[in-house]
Amino acid sequence: MILTVTLNTALDITYRTPRLVPHTTHRVSEVIERPGGKGLNVARVLAALGHETVVTGFAGGRTGDVLRELLPLAPGIPAYAPPVDALVPIAGATRRTVAVVDGSTGDTTQLNEPGPVVSPAEWAAFLARYEELLAGADAVALCGSLPPGIHVGAYADLVRGARGAGVPVLLDTGGEPLRRGIAARPDLVKPNADELARLTGSREPLRATRDARRRGAHAVVASLGPDGVLAATPDGVWRACPPAPAKGNPTGAGDSVVAGLLSALVERLPWPDRLTRAVALATATVLSPAAGEFDAGAYGELLSRVRVTEQPPQ
Amino acid sequence: MILTVTLNTALDITYRTPRLVPHTTHRVSEVIERPGGKGLNVARVLAALGHETVVTGFAGGRTGDVLRELLPLAPGIPAYAPPVDALVPIAGATRRTVAVVDGSTGDTTQLNEPGPVVSPAEWAAFLARYEELLAGADAVALCGSLPPGIHVGAYADLVRGARGAGVPVLLDTGGEPLRRGIAARPDLVKPNADELARLTGSREPLRATRDARRRGAHAVVASLGPDGVLAATPDGVWRACPPAPAKGNPTGAGDSVVAGLLSALVERLPWPDRLTRAVALATATVLSPAAGEFDAGAYGELLSRVRVTEQPPQ
Repeated sequence: MILTVTLNTALDITYRTPRLVPHTTHRVSEVIERPGGKGLNVARVLAALGHETVVTGFAGGRTGDVLRELLPLAPGIPAYAPPVDALVPIAGATRRTVAVVDGSTGDTTQLNEPGPVVSPAEWAAFLARYEELLAGADAVALCGSLPPGIHVGAYADLVRGARGAGVPVLLDTGGEPLRRGIAARPDLVKPNADELARLTGSREPLRATRDARRRGAHAVVASLGPDGVLAATPDGVWRACPPAPAKGNPTGAGDSVVAGLLSALVERLPWPDRLTRAVALATATVLSPAAGEFDAGAYGELLSRVRVTEQPPQ
Repeated sequence: MILTVTLNTALDITYRTPRLVPHTTHRVSEVIERPGGKGLNVARVLAALGHETVVTGFAGGRTGDVLRELLPLAPGIPAYAPPVDALVPIAGATRRTVAVVDGSTGDTTQLNEPGPVVSPAEWAAFLARYEELLAGADAVALCGSLPPGIHVGAYADLVRGARGAGVPVLLDTGGEPLRRGIAARPDLVKPNADELARLTGSREPLRATRDARRRGAHAVVASLGPDGVLAATPDGVWRACPPAPAKGNPTGAGDSVVAGLLSALVERLPWPDRLTRAVALATATVLSPAAGEFDAGAYGELLSRVRVTEQPPQ
């Protein structure tokens, strides 16, 4: 079983409207609701790849109820086993995110609520649940921002918990939670270009990726959008690129990188194969019109076309 | 008791953000949820004026649950008796509206969901409830747009129902539902300038208001924003203006006009006093920083300062 942790889950709402014009009134033509937050997105991709997946984190209020109701819904994949819901209830209401998509261009305007405050008792309840779940986990992913009320070193604590239980742990966050978390020596971190630059002070990907690894992570896979990924690992340094830049909706591509890396890790694939899967999944996600879903046909086809090149040792 | 009907209720969500920039991501600093839809807003103002009020219409889904939970909340007014909830449950989920307020300027960008489809059985259940409620009503207001699934002549039917029960009926809607509704001879319609122009083809308020009255309404009160109201009634034609243009948030000012007219109607006040109250309430609503609430102090002070002038007969 693969466990994903989403402390700041969200009910993701997508509105379609011809064009967003500030300070005017818009009639929304289409409303889509989905369970959101990075860890839930990762879990859906893992489930679509056929992996047994459990999600934890927090859900509360009416928005949390809707999120949990939507979690089992299948994305039209035969024999899809949805992620198992091990979310911890909280008193506050799960935040909403609103994405307003311009119908003509596909450009998206995003509005993110801050999320509910998590109480110390709720955090303690989560820690107990996390420890139980680790006992049955082959790997764990810690994903996304921290909600209000949770201390900035929380991910560092969760990394140490996973390592203590002997469970490989991937951390996908940014800012100070990433800085603290990386020092607790996770097996893998997956920053994007901005998170990497903020962590290391360098916009030069190869240099920054190697620097991030020296800060404590056993491996660093930087997701560089249309340029694919760059990985600094104990076995070497690789770059993996899609065969051509994909045009489409990049929402969820980073989460697909995490799902690709994590599934390949538990299948004990060598690094080049892990990176190939991550880039093929991310590219197939961009190619799918629905945010956060991947085009299964494109994924299969891309697996043989992603280019992985080893980089010279430092 | 005053009855208000809101067929397309909404959960009104207000987001505050420094500035809305299309195609970027915004962290929302403040989230406010309120029961919405014109008839609910009218009912809250009526209740704040001390009138016993009942609300009906439709509510469904988790958003409908939140709306009903928020309905009894008092706006900090002593001895406030909230509107009584006589909403009819439906299978579909009550729509949301999202208002994004720019923190610096107060400019608002509005996103309105279309609303759930109402089934024929749900419409029949509403009609039965409406008939029961009319038996105890001193006046009824029919407010806002029609949700999908309800025929365009619905308001005309509801106007005839009220007239059959001997209950004075006010209609506040636009477009074809107003055109059909007005032909069923309501006691009062309250179009704004745009609705009036669309109905009559004229942008000249006095001419258009008189024309609207000839189409079947016993009285027409056109709300003209900062210019106050213009009323064509069986007793004469009046214009009522605030003492000075009010600067603030005009959201809900039209609903306050309806509440002022309706409360003064059941109190059997003469037309000039009805119009004074309507304009004072609307102006006090613009002056209140919270959308849809009115500044009680300003209201009391404005009552003696609204200017009502009789217009020459045609």
